[in-house]
This record gives sequence, structure tokens and C-alpha cells, in this order.
Amino acid sequence: MALIVQKYGGTSMGSPERIENVAKKVGSFHDQGHQMVVAVSAMSGETDRLIKLAKTIQERPDPRELDVIISTGEQVTIALLAMALQKLGYKAKSYTGAQVQIRTDDAFTKARIKEIDDARIRKDLADGYIIVVAGFQGMDEAGNITTLGRGGSDTTGVALAAALKADECQIYTDVDGVYTTDPRVVPEARRLNSVTFEEMLELASLGAKVLQIRSVEFAGKYNVPLRVLSTFVDGPGTLITSEESKMEQVIISGIAFNRDEAKLTIVGVPDQPGVAARILSPIGRANIEVDMIIQNVGADGLTDFTFTVHRNDYDKAYDILDKTSKELGARAVSGDKKIVKVSLVGVGMRSHAGVASTMFETLAKEGINIKMISTSEIKISVVVDEKYLELAVRSLHAAFKLEQAPV
Amino acid sequence: MALIVQKYGGTSMGSPERIENVAKKVGSFHDQGHQMVVAVSAMSGETDRLIKLAKTIQERPDPRELDVIISTGEQVTIALLAMALQKLGYKAKSYTGAQVQIRTDDAFTKARIKEIDDARIRKDLADGYIIVVAGFQGMDEAGNITTLGRGGSDTTGVALAAALKADECQIYTDVDGVYTTDPRVVPEARRLNSVTFEEMLELASLGAKVLQIRSVEFAGKYNVPLRVLSTFVDGPGTLITSEESKMEQVIISGIAFNRDEAKLTIVGVPDQPGVAARILSPIGRANIEVDMIIQNVGADGLTDFTFTVHRNDYDKAYDILDKTSKELGARAVSGDKKIVKVSLVGVGMRSHAGVASTMFETLAKEGINIKMISTSEIKISVVVDEKYLELAVRSLHAAFKLEQAPV
Repeated sequence: MALIVQKYGGTSMGSPERIENVAKKVGSFHDQGHQMVVAVSAMSGETDRLIKLAKTIQERPDPRELDVIISTGEQVTIALLAMALQKLGYKAKSYTGAQVQIRTDDAFTKARIKEIDDARIRKDLADGYIIVVAGFQGMDEAGNITTLGRGGSDTTGVALAAALKADECQIYTDVDGVYTTDPRVVPEARRLNSVTFEEMLELASLGAKVLQIRSVEFAGKYNVPLRVLSTFVDGPGTLITSEESKMEQVIISGIAFNRDEAKLTIVGVPDQPGVAARILSPIGRANIEVDMIIQNVGADGLTDFTFTVHRNDYDKAYDILDKTSKELGARAVSGDKKIVKVSLVGVGMRSHAGVASTMFETLAKEGINIKMISTSEIKISVVVDEKYLELAVRSLHAAFKLEQAPV
Repeated sequence: MALIVQKYGGTSMGSPERIENVAKKVGSFHDQGHQMVVAVSAMSGETDRLIKLAKTIQERPDPRELDVIISTGEQVTIALLAMALQKLGYKAKSYTGAQVQIRTDDAFTKARIKEIDDARIRKDLADGYIIVVAGFQGMDEAGNITTLGRGGSDTTGVALAAALKADECQIYTDVDGVYTTDPRVVPEARRLNSVTFEEMLELASLGAKVLQIRSVEFAGKYNVPLRVLSTFVDGPGTLITSEESKMEQVIISGIAFNRDEAKLTIVGVPDQPGVAARILSPIGRANIEVDMIIQNVGADGLTDFTFTVHRNDYDKAYDILDKTSKELGARAVSGDKKIVKVSLVGVGMRSHAGVASTMFETLAKEGINIKMISTSEIKISVVVDEKYLELAVRSLHAAFKLEQAPV
């Protein structure tokens, strides 16, 4: 008998029929003797509907009041799921974030969970109840309703699992696990049986949008075994766990890519201390997030400085950089919106030489020019022309034999 | 400067435009220097939509879970109104029932308010905020969400006014006050400037459906001056207050009527102690509410016993009575679905003789046969054939000169 926390997303809760299907799934685990706590999202589309309603009144809705409105989406689904469970004969109870004391900071619309008081849930579990908790929401010290931002229900699930010291946190979604890369690009892409938290962070942040990044960080921090599974197709899914417990020993786990990037370069900047800060501070103040950063020192005391931003922020960033360029007496500003980032991810590359050279050789053989390179301990990213995206991902997937399951 | 509690119903909150209109109205009171607390209902139709959604899962939804769902209707409107007030430049904050500690018993879907902790509201009022509170909802001792039943938002408004010792509780609705009778029946019907709590109870329960009965009881108990006004038409409305403070001295305030009644008679029952209980207990056990009850003792030791029920309960009540009749050895059971009740209401009749005789003479002059009579201190009700309803109400309205404002 285990204590299992499950999380079901908006698609899984998208209609009364689907909610009844979720109830059956949850009930089957209870039948096996497990104690069940379930975190749920609003019905798909509902949060957007509520935001739209708020915007008919205020173009930029007051964040505190917006949270009051959008938190109702999950309040509806928790009760519907509790009813569906009761209909099947189970004892079930729903709780809002405030009711089970999911305490957050007061950053409305993007709050972070600080602690959960698990006393009430533990008592109900001991009494044989299946507990349904509203994802995505909590309350601050002053008792105001807060929400955790997009995808926050994943974080609720993991936080509940951490607070309850659950044996496993299962995230049900509309994909059946984490893949070596996007199967729409590489049909041979293979579902991974397990990845590490660190790999998952790189895969998630680089575009394999299965889990909210913050929930993976949270799971890693509290060492909560996390499993991604499909609500609609039975299967083992993908287990996300700490490196130590990982069974497979592979070099590369997957290939992530991101079509949303654009790159900007400031050319011929005097190479002095503090110049990077002077370039990036105005970008940060404009709330533009920077992804990759590369600086190369030239021989003439001048340097080129390149970074990538989200494609939507390109024009704004260009204008800011143009102004900075004049202040610094730089030679020029250039940019490119038609780029993509492709990343190899794998904890195995820590101890395996030759990954980078295989990657570069593979791309060279296909005639793909690399525009930027950036590396971390478990990742190598390259920026290439967007027209080469599919070719790059496919050739790398084949070169590292990712379609084959490890022995 | 006064402390005013206002309540706006579902029609007043029916669309973003209407909510902005309510914000203007509330703001104009704030501009006059008043401290404002506003209780609101869900958008019209929303509660029904949510109940329907719940019923797609459970035909008879679990009351606790149903309250979790339907309480979201007001949670949406409080935030929308707070936003609309902010848009006009006012400081405004929304609160759910649980957040301002509207404590109720645990009778889900029809809970009663026990107390309200006003500390938080008082602090915000002192800080210059307009406070918007979700009507219709509260929480029980254990922290479960409860709702107060249909029309419960009126009760929330009155309970807030009582807790805050407000100078006035204003109930905004789609009629501009309480009338001497239904203007659709008597075009000369006149808006009353004031009625007493007791009169309002009789008028409300007898069919002039302006206010929820419970809210009037509550207002009477805590002596909260209550005013009914229109959201859409400016005007003084009708003040509902205790008798002492009533300015007008009139005999009859209004004429109420009820088309939904049906009468049942059990004829020739042995006249023994306990016979009334033996007749009515099975009716009560079947959850049928009884309105008027009349018993007349005959000379032969037998009695006839007549009572009225809602027309929808007539068939069920008839069957039960038929069974009771056999057990008691009564002579027969008879009934009539085509009846209506017409009532004269007025605190003035306490000290004025002749009201009943004027009433009976007026009806006799029109050839209207009276089938039942029932009186209380401030009310005389008669049951007549339903075809005479309009004639009875019009002739009584004229006989008591209700179309004329008192001097």
C-alpha cells in the first residue's frame, strides 16, 4: 500500500465524461489499496474564458482580483471529480487551495508555494477518503487567494506529494511520457522509461513541454519521484527521478529544440570590465528574458557580444541594443530572427568524451552551419538556421541511436 | 457620513456593462462620503448553469460538493465588481464568504448564518476601501464552503449590515419598491414609502416576491433598516423598518395573493384530541408544507378539517389524506385545485375594527363566494375560486383606497 498523489490536467478534466473517466482511474488505484490524493486543473479553456471575462472590465485586470476569478475554474472541477468518485461508491472530499492551507507568497497570478499543512488531508486519508485538491491555487499569509501561474497544477501535485511524503507523484497529461525528441519531427522518437530531474529540466525548458519547469525543480529539491503518464492510453509513462536511482545508463537522453528564439549581436564593443552588464541590464529592465549568451574577445581590444531572446521580444530588444551600442561606441548591431536552438541533453555526457565532436561532425556532414554554441554539464546547444531544424534533429537522433532502447 | 450595505442581485450583475453600472452607483455613494460594503449575487443564470453541470455527474449532487461548485458564481462577480470600481479610480477589494468569516451551520445548500467576524472589513473601510462580499455563501465550523439557499444574497446583505451596525441595508433589485399589490393585476397599485418588517413578511410570503423572507426576519431581529430599490430606475424605493419608526399611519398596507394553492378537506372525522396531528403528521413526513389550516366542530361529534398546500403537492397530499381517512373512519376526502388566496396586510388593522367586515362586504357585493377565512393580528386571508382573483384584488384595492397616498 502506497500513498500516491496524482495530477490531472485541463484536457483530462475537459468534460463530464472525461471527469468520470478520471474517477474510474483514481478509483482503480484506491481498489489496489493505495491512499489517493488528486490535484486537478480547471476544464480546458475555462481559465482562458475567465481571463477574457475579467478583461471585458479591466484591460489589465488587478492581479489580486484576477486570482479570485480564475481560481474558480479548479473549484468547479474538484467538486465534479469528488461527485464522480462518490457515484462510483468511493468516499471522496474536495478541497480548495485555501482549505488545505496551501500557503504561498503574495505574488498574485504567479505565486510560489511556501508550505502545505497536511494535517487535514492525513486525517481524511486515515478515514478512507479520496482527497481531491484544487491545483494552481493557494492563499497568502493575509488569506488572499493566489494562483501559481500557467501549469501551476503540476506544482500543486508535487508540493502535495512532498508535504505528504508520497511514494510517487503521477502527472497525467495527454502524452504518454517523455520522448527522446518530438515525434512529429522524428517519427522514430522513443519514450524514455526514466530521466533524471536535471535532464527533465533541460528537456522541459528547451521545448519538450510536458511538465511545468517549476514542478520539476520542486520534485528534485524534495526528491519526489515523479511519473508522467497519459490519461487516455494505459502505459508506464516516464519516471523522473534523481540520478542515483536511474537504472538506464545512457549518454544522451533526448534532443530538445526551440523555434521561438532570435539572436542579437553587438559588434566591436570595447572589451572592458562591466561591459556585459551595461549591455544586458537595459534588456532585463525591459522585462526581456535572455537565454544563451556568448562573448568572444578579439585581438584588437574589441569584443563581439551575442545573446538570444524570445522571438516576440526581438524588435524591442533590437531598439534597446541600438541605443546601448551608441552609448558604448560599438561598431554595429546585427540580428537574426530566423534561427532555432537544438540541444542534446543527457547526464551521461558528463563522463563521456566525444559527444560534442560527434554532434558537430553530424551537423557538418549535413552541411548545417552552426551559428552559436553553448554548453553545460549535461547539455550542448547549437543555434542553426531555422530551415535546418528538422534535418538537424533527425540526423542527431540517428547519430546517437536514440531510437534504440538501451540494453 | 454613514455606513451603507448594498446588495445587488443576479439581474443587476447580469453582464459586464451592468456590473460597470453598479460600480458607478456604488461609487456615487462613496463620493458622498459614505463607507460602502456591497454584497452581490452571481450573474443571472450562472447558478442554474453550475447546478446543471453538477447534475451531469450526479443526478442528486452531494450537497457539500454542490456548494463548492455553486459558490464560484459569486466569487466571479465580486472580483469583476472590484475591478470595475478600481477602473473608476476607487480602492476596492473583494472577499469570499469564507474570507470574511461568514460562519454558518453545516446545512449545505441551505445553511444559516451564525456570525460574521467584521474585523477585516472594518480595517479595510478605515483604509478607504469599498468592500465587495460574495453573497449567498459562508463556511461552517470545519471550514467547509456552504451556501444559504435561493435568495441567500439578501440575507448576506442584512447579516453584514447587522454585524457592522450599518445605518441602512439597501437591496437593489429589478423592481423599484414594494407595492400595495401586483401592478399587473391592479394598474393603480402604489409604491409604498415604508412598511414594517411584519407587514413585509406577510407580503413576501404571500407572493410579493421582492425579498427573501429570511432576510426580512433577520433584519427585523437585529433592527436593520432595510430599503428595496431598483438598480435601473432612480428613486427612494421602499423602507422596511420597525413599527415604531414608521411614519405613515395607514390601516392596510397592501394586498397579497397566491395562485399556487390547493385545498383539501377531510369530512366527518371523529372529533377527538390528537386528530389534527394524526391528519397532518403523514403530510409533514412527506415534506409537504401546509399553509392555512381550518377546523370546525360540528354538532354530531364529527368535525371537518381543511388545509391548503402548494398546488404541485396536491396529488401526493390527496393520496396520503385518503389513506388517513380510512384509518380514522372519516366520511370522505374532497379537494379543490382551482382556488387562490387573497390577503389584506397591515399593522393598522390591530387597532382598527371593521377591516374584516369591509373586506367581506366588498367581496359579497361582487358576488364572490368565500371558501375559507384565516386571520392573524396583521392579516386577513380568504380563499376564493381562482376565476375571481383579479376581481377580488381590484375591488379590495379600491375599497381600501390603496391607490391614494396617505396624508
